[in-house]
Amino acid sequence: MSFDRLITKINEMENPSVVGLDATFDKLPQFLQKQAIAEHGETLLAASQAVLNFNKALIDALYDIVPAVKPQCAYYEMLGFEGMRTLYQTTEYAKQKGMFVIHDGKRNDIGSTMEAYAAAHLGETTIGNTKIQAFGADALTVNGYLGTDGIQPLLDICKEQDKGIFVLAKTSNPSSGELQDKMIDGKSIYNIMGHMCEKWGESVMGKNYSGVGAVVGATYPEQLAQLRKELPRTFFLVPGYGAQGGGAKDVAGAFYKGQGAIINNSRGIMYAYKNENCNEKDFAQAARRAAIKMKGNLYENLFTHSLGL
Amino acid sequence: MSFDRLITKINEMENPSVVGLDATFDKLPQFLQKQAIAEHGETLLAASQAVLNFNKALIDALYDIVPAVKPQCAYYEMLGFEGMRTLYQTTEYAKQKGMFVIHDGKRNDIGSTMEAYAAAHLGETTIGNTKIQAFGADALTVNGYLGTDGIQPLLDICKEQDKGIFVLAKTSNPSSGELQDKMIDGKSIYNIMGHMCEKWGESVMGKNYSGVGAVVGATYPEQLAQLRKELPRTFFLVPGYGAQGGGAKDVAGAFYKGQGAIINNSRGIMYAYKNENCNEKDFAQAARRAAIKMKGNLYENLFTHSLGL
Repeated sequence: MSFDRLITKINEMENPSVVGLDATFDKLPQFLQKQAIAEHGETLLAASQAVLNFNKALIDALYDIVPAVKPQCAYYEMLGFEGMRTLYQTTEYAKQKGMFVIHDGKRNDIGSTMEAYAAAHLGETTIGNTKIQAFGADALTVNGYLGTDGIQPLLDICKEQDKGIFVLAKTSNPSSGELQDKMIDGKSIYNIMGHMCEKWGESVMGKNYSGVGAVVGATYPEQLAQLRKELPRTFFLVPGYGAQGGGAKDVAGAFYKGQGAIINNSRGIMYAYKNENCNEKDFAQAARRAAIKMKGNLYENLFTHSLGL
Repeated sequence: MSFDRLITKINEMENPSVVGLDATFDKLPQFLQKQAIAEHGETLLAASQAVLNFNKALIDALYDIVPAVKPQCAYYEMLGFEGMRTLYQTTEYAKQKGMFVIHDGKRNDIGSTMEAYAAAHLGETTIGNTKIQAFGADALTVNGYLGTDGIQPLLDICKEQDKGIFVLAKTSNPSSGELQDKMIDGKSIYNIMGHMCEKWGESVMGKNYSGVGAVVGATYPEQLAQLRKELPRTFFLVPGYGAQGGGAKDVAGAFYKGQGAIINNSRGIMYAYKNENCNEKDFAQAARRAAIKMKGNLYENLFTHSLGL
């Protein structure tokens, strides 16, 4: 009913980072692309198979040092229903290896529809007398624009099934401020959304943090540190590290006494073999080397700059 | 590059309504449930096949009198990747019958990820030298919380491929006001979002309306009428009619000179056989009768209450 399961993994591995699994077919190592096209032609099935093979190799290389993966749903949807099968298979594979799986879907809708999304990504679908996990993730990112009744069905499932959600507060993109920074009675909208997370989290409290986290971008370090101070029970998912420009020092403010956040890196880990300029067949070990380096950078800055230390 | 294609269909059929295809397996006619389970067991495949058969029968019964359908992605996702195949097949089938297909996904993300959603639902995915439509809808609902760079990739595809988007402004659910009604310098957030739609629409203008529409709920008739006056180029998708409580008089304010909006009805049409208490095998014709009744109600009120008439 909270993020305690994730926090325990983070502490065991001493690594508050999550690897985004957001591959597009054209950016995969050439040999994986060629192999898939040789087998299935230039089809969505070929691309989906190649992405699955890529993801599995990354998971194999990372599961003992990285606590969580975050597949971004958009990249699977662009491969059609075959891609959605790869999302399911990736999630299953990562869970088998003990990883915590966050589906980055930013889902949102009215209450009755949100029940369907909650069932799809975190809960179960009932067919006759049988209950089946459609995608079976551990957590889901959501957008709170519709207010409480669009969040409630998720809270119910978080309680029943020990799952979590991350609600968008301050996103990492350049134009996030257009709406999110607007001020209402001296408070920004992202701040108001953050406080809604604290409130929604009351019914799903864990040891220190609730099951309702917030998404706060590494690209806005001041806002990140400010929200950490104001939202003591809200665990943060921090995107924007690496390719989007956020660094280890920028994310230090997300932590209180060395805890309270998980930092996402997608392209910097997935495509580390390109940055290293190594043999592309070595892509998974390059990802491992990049993950170890990131962990080191995070810890160094965390112990220098984290609040309360 | 706009909603002109949809508006032409609406005018031809004299019917500004869209049928939501949001079925859940347990609410389907019993014979469809039994048939599917007999064939495939209690599986997501069985449910997905049953929903596909249900959707096709509805489309067959409606395509000559209703211009558009709106599958709600959540109900397909809760059936896993098999459900996403049903979403694809439903979309294909409705397009073959000449219907305009709106995917209700309320997708949102940073620019680079939004490119993937735009490709998934409206555009094409490139595999080697082959371009493939992953889901191939005509329009997609989106959430503008992330600002302009999360919308731009959709505008590019709207321009290139004659597609449209509907951005959430004032949603139909009870708690929509928690964030959306908050006031900034005398303007509500939903109003600000509406004006952002007007601005985003400038680059994708059609005859009278742009390719950037807004979602405004039938359950808030005053706000609906006010937005119609303020947003002359923004076409409205209006949910909340029927099961959620909105009536024909409530939605009249969405129109200017009898145009400018399309009204969604999901449960009131899909499950009309339950309201009628007719033989469940007659579900598709019951849906047709309900759709004809809705069209009559809309037109009566539209010509009595629409602005500019």
